[in-house]
Amino acid sequence: MEQLKRKIREHGSVLSEQVLKVDAFLNHQVDPPLMQAIGREFARRFGDQGIDKVLTLEASGIAPALMTALELGVPLVFARKHRSLTLTDNLLTARVYSFTKQVESTVAVSASHLAAGERVLIVDDFLANGQAALGLAAIVRQAGAQLMGIGIVIEKSFQSGRRALEEQGYRVESLARIASLADGQVSFLE
Amino acid sequence: MEQLKRKIREHGSVLSEQVLKVDAFLNHQVDPPLMQAIGREFARRFGDQGIDKVLTLEASGIAPALMTALELGVPLVFARKHRSLTLTDNLLTARVYSFTKQVESTVAVSASHLAAGERVLIVDDFLANGQAALGLAAIVRQAGAQLMGIGIVIEKSFQSGRRALEEQGYRVESLARIASLADGQVSFLE
Repeated sequence: MEQLKRKIREHGSVLSEQVLKVDAFLNHQVDPPLMQAIGREFARRFGDQGIDKVLTLEASGIAPALMTALELGVPLVFARKHRSLTLTDNLLTARVYSFTKQVESTVAVSASHLAAGERVLIVDDFLANGQAALGLAAIVRQAGAQLMGIGIVIEKSFQSGRRALEEQGYRVESLARIASLADGQVSFLE
Repeated sequence: MEQLKRKIREHGSVLSEQVLKVDAFLNHQVDPPLMQAIGREFARRFGDQGIDKVLTLEASGIAPALMTALELGVPLVFARKHRSLTLTDNLLTARVYSFTKQVESTVAVSASHLAAGERVLIVDDFLANGQAALGLAAIVRQAGAQLMGIGIVIEKSFQSGRRALEEQGYRVESLARIASLADGQVSFLE
């Protein structure tokens, strides 16, 4: 997606060979027209899959996932990382390990909002080691719902996430695939 | 806002005299067309204020705030509750006490994304005791920016938040104002 790659080139900053900072437009400050374009692109790629629901993980996934759900005309559900007072009963949960923060956390979705047979699209901002997406996929399976695909805004293709997801048979669509962050430069795949 | 009140009546559930659960359409599952309507309504109410940026707090504020920012044609910034690896330098912070969770936490915005002189609209999903909004307002002041108003999706008018914000001179616009949750019923103001 050319508009996204341009934004990454112009406003992303490479902090290390592993870490790309995109807090100018994606996960701290957010560019709403870019989110709208991202939502349209995911809707274009998955529009023929009969999606019933978009699933993401708080907090950075919410903006692109909301615009995708709006374009597809379906509800969004965002998994919570922490249990909250009003989200106590009947939870579907998965353990997710964050390599960035080096902590394991529980992500949870209320069973009320993910039903057996529903066709689910996962949308997330980043794909690195795939732990978050694998956790969300586990929740979809627990619900007895069908995972129709995984839409990723930025994929770090030099990490193992895509392979892990594809090994489980999932279709992964990433809007920007980064081959390398070496020498402080963003190199895209293809 | 009639569409929102209807949604609260039909899909909200009263857990106690203090707690209204709206995780069917606002803070866990999210209704995208409702968020779009909310964004349009805030844009209508604050459209003449020359807003440069919308500010909210992760995670539940993001959906209504994103749609507001999209309608106003300005960026969104969401304050983070936890420090992340790529958000380390030059932070504006405030301590926020949550009466619901009975914990104090730090909310943070990178100084890179909130500049002196910018005209800021705060948008949040709930107003109860006003702690979150007061924290965000403190961050706006630290940045030397101007707080032009506070847009709230659901106000619990029987709690002290609005008074606390108005005492500091802020304009508060709430789309649904709840007078009481007594007897398991939602009663709206006026």
